[in-house]
Formats: sequence, structure tokens, C-alpha cells
Amino acid sequence: MAAASRAVIVSRPVTFVTGNAKKLEEVKTILGQSIPFQSLKLDLPELQGEPEEISKEKARLAARQVNGPVLVEDTCLCFNALKGLPGPYIKWFLQKIGHEGLNNLLMAYEDKSAYALCAFSFALGPDVEPVTFLGKTPGKIVPARGPNDFGWDPIFQPDGYDQTYAEMPKEEKNKISHRSRALDMVKSHFAEAGYNFTPSRE
Amino acid sequence: MAAASRAVIVSRPVTFVTGNAKKLEEVKTILGQSIPFQSLKLDLPELQGEPEEISKEKARLAARQVNGPVLVEDTCLCFNALKGLPGPYIKWFLQKIGHEGLNNLLMAYEDKSAYALCAFSFALGPDVEPVTFLGKTPGKIVPARGPNDFGWDPIFQPDGYDQTYAEMPKEEKNKISHRSRALDMVKSHFAEAGYNFTPSRE
Repeated sequence: MAAASRAVIVSRPVTFVTGNAKKLEEVKTILGQSIPFQSLKLDLPELQGEPEEISKEKARLAARQVNGPVLVEDTCLCFNALKGLPGPYIKWFLQKIGHEGLNNLLMAYEDKSAYALCAFSFALGPDVEPVTFLGKTPGKIVPARGPNDFGWDPIFQPDGYDQTYAEMPKEEKNKISHRSRALDMVKSHFAEAGYNFTPSRE
Repeated sequence: MAAASRAVIVSRPVTFVTGNAKKLEEVKTILGQSIPFQSLKLDLPELQGEPEEISKEKARLAARQVNGPVLVEDTCLCFNALKGLPGPYIKWFLQKIGHEGLNNLLMAYEDKSAYALCAFSFALGPDVEPVTFLGKTPGKIVPARGPNDFGWDPIFQPDGYDQTYAEMPKEEKNKISHRSRALDMVKSHFAEAGYNFTPSRE
């Protein structure tokens, strides 16, 4: 089979770069047990640029530090009226101006549409160009509704729903979220690429 | 004298990290000829974070690449109503939403005040913690006026002036600009630190 002929040997567990044990669990659950994952909190620089480039560069830096296979993740919230911004800088905007301030950024525009974007990049090692997977969920920016315990979830209402991310039951959100869509793509890639986990004997 | 006792030997010219020959000339003119400068365009990652931290980290990365003394520069445009944002991300906002879009960000606020911020960081070498100099010019964000050939100059009107940066004669702007203020601090530091340029014999 084509997949088998392209099989790539992965001789070390894939390091998922995160300080968040919950995220590691989610990744393990979705990606299955064929490839072993471990998590590691790395002190990587946060870069400026386009979402895909930021993600790829983060994977390159991580692969160099780990000297092995890595998976990295980033999230953006992109306002269409602002041509995709705040995008990768959403963390700073949320921290400094909050939910109301984020709504205010769109005061001048009728177009409140936005999309949540999740980028995963996977690099087999420091000398291999990373592959990037972008999961996107369209929606709009609304005044905050719902529990205020997870970032900008209260101000993002996905298209086709009357609820914000924050108001949705978790299983419902996970079906359509930018994060789950990106992870589905990672999963398909792992299945198609036929990575073959064979521990090295070192 | 105290200054002399603290004198630090600089055995290599200071590398000013820029791809812009004009900027090198300006730095040379303002800092004088006691310390030799050379310019170098480095492909450094652009980082996210607070302006001072971004500048220091850039100097650390540059000093490691150059393996010698470096000077780096960054510019921010900070809106007070947005708690200092777009700040270090102004380049992306200008590129994507332009002068009108930048004005629109403040539509929800009466407070149009802002400040232009210039950060220079100087590191003697890869193992020396950089020193940072922040030059700040307060003003406000206005609809674009004046020649449109230099970034966000047409929408920034410094306090005490009826003109935008873009409308001001260059010499006038240079007297009060965030950049000249930061460079003045660099100059004072160089004078006080008593750096002593003594070429190594390698």
C-alpha cells in the first residue's frame, strides 16, 4: 500500500509543547495511542507574524530544543473588519482591554464577523520542515455571555448557534471548535502518513 | 574619577541591527565618533510581549548571533484607551487596516490620547544583560494629515503641536520625537559608562 511505502519511523515519543496537562489528555484521546505522546513546558519565544508562520517557527524552535519530534499549538481570534486582527495577539488584547474592549474595537463597523483559528504544527525533528494544520470556526463577536472562566469564549458566537462558546455544553463546543477541527486534521495526517513508532535502542 | 574607574573596554565596533542605512547615519551622527558603529541586517524573530522585554530579548538574540556588542531598536504606537495597544504590534495594524482603521479602533472612546515609544537596547556581548532606553512622546490619534510616506506619522499629533508628525518639518520632529529622546538616553549612557574602544589584536 502507498501509505506503508511512505511510512516514516518515529523513534521517540512526540513531545507536545504545553504546560497544560488537560491539553495533553485531549490530544492523547483524539490522536489515539498508536504514537506515544509526552508533554513538556518549554520556554519558547512568542513570535509576531502570520498565524501559519508563527506556528511553523515555533515548531522549528521546539524541535531544535527537544532534538526530536514535536507538536505545538496556537490559537487566534480574527476579526474580519480588522483583516484578521487581533489574530495572534488576542491574548494581549484580552488581558489588557477585556471582553468589552474587544467588542469596542468593532464599534466603527457593522461587520462583527470573526473566526476562531487553531494552528497545530508537527515537526519530525530539527532538520525536518514542519507541517501545519489550521482549524477554523466562523462566527461573530458579541457582548459577553456565559461563564467567564475561559478566555474569550463568552464573546464568540459560532455561526448557526444562538449560544456563545462559553454558553455551549462542552461536548457541543468540542464538535465544532477551531481546536477540534485542527486536531481532526492532525489525526488524519498521522493516519495517512503512516508514522511508525519504533523505539530506538539507545 | 568614578566614570573612569567603571570604564568598560569595547574591543569590537558596536553592531547596530538594521537594514536601513539612513538609521545608521542618524545613530552615528547623534552618538558621535568615540565608539565605532557598523550596521548589519539580521534575520531576528519579532517577538510578542511588553515593549521593554521585546527589546531586551532582541538584543540578547542579536548579541548571540553577532558574538559582540549590539544596539537594537523598536518602535511602538500605544493608545491609552487600549491600555498601550496596538503597541509593539502597530506594524501589523498599519499594514492591514491603515490610517482609517487605526482611527476606527478608538471610535468607542472619547480618549484619543496615545504615545509614540522607541526602545533601544544595548548589549556588550552575549553574556551581558542588555540595558534598555525608552523614549516616549505623548500625543493623540487624529485622521491622517500630511505626506503619507512614513508609516503612521500622518495620524500622530504630538502634544503642544497643531501638526502631525508627517506635517512637521523634519528638524522640528527630530527635536521631540520618541526616537530622538531614546537616542539622547543612549548617548548619555555611553558618555557616563565611559566605554573605552580599544580594538583587539586578533
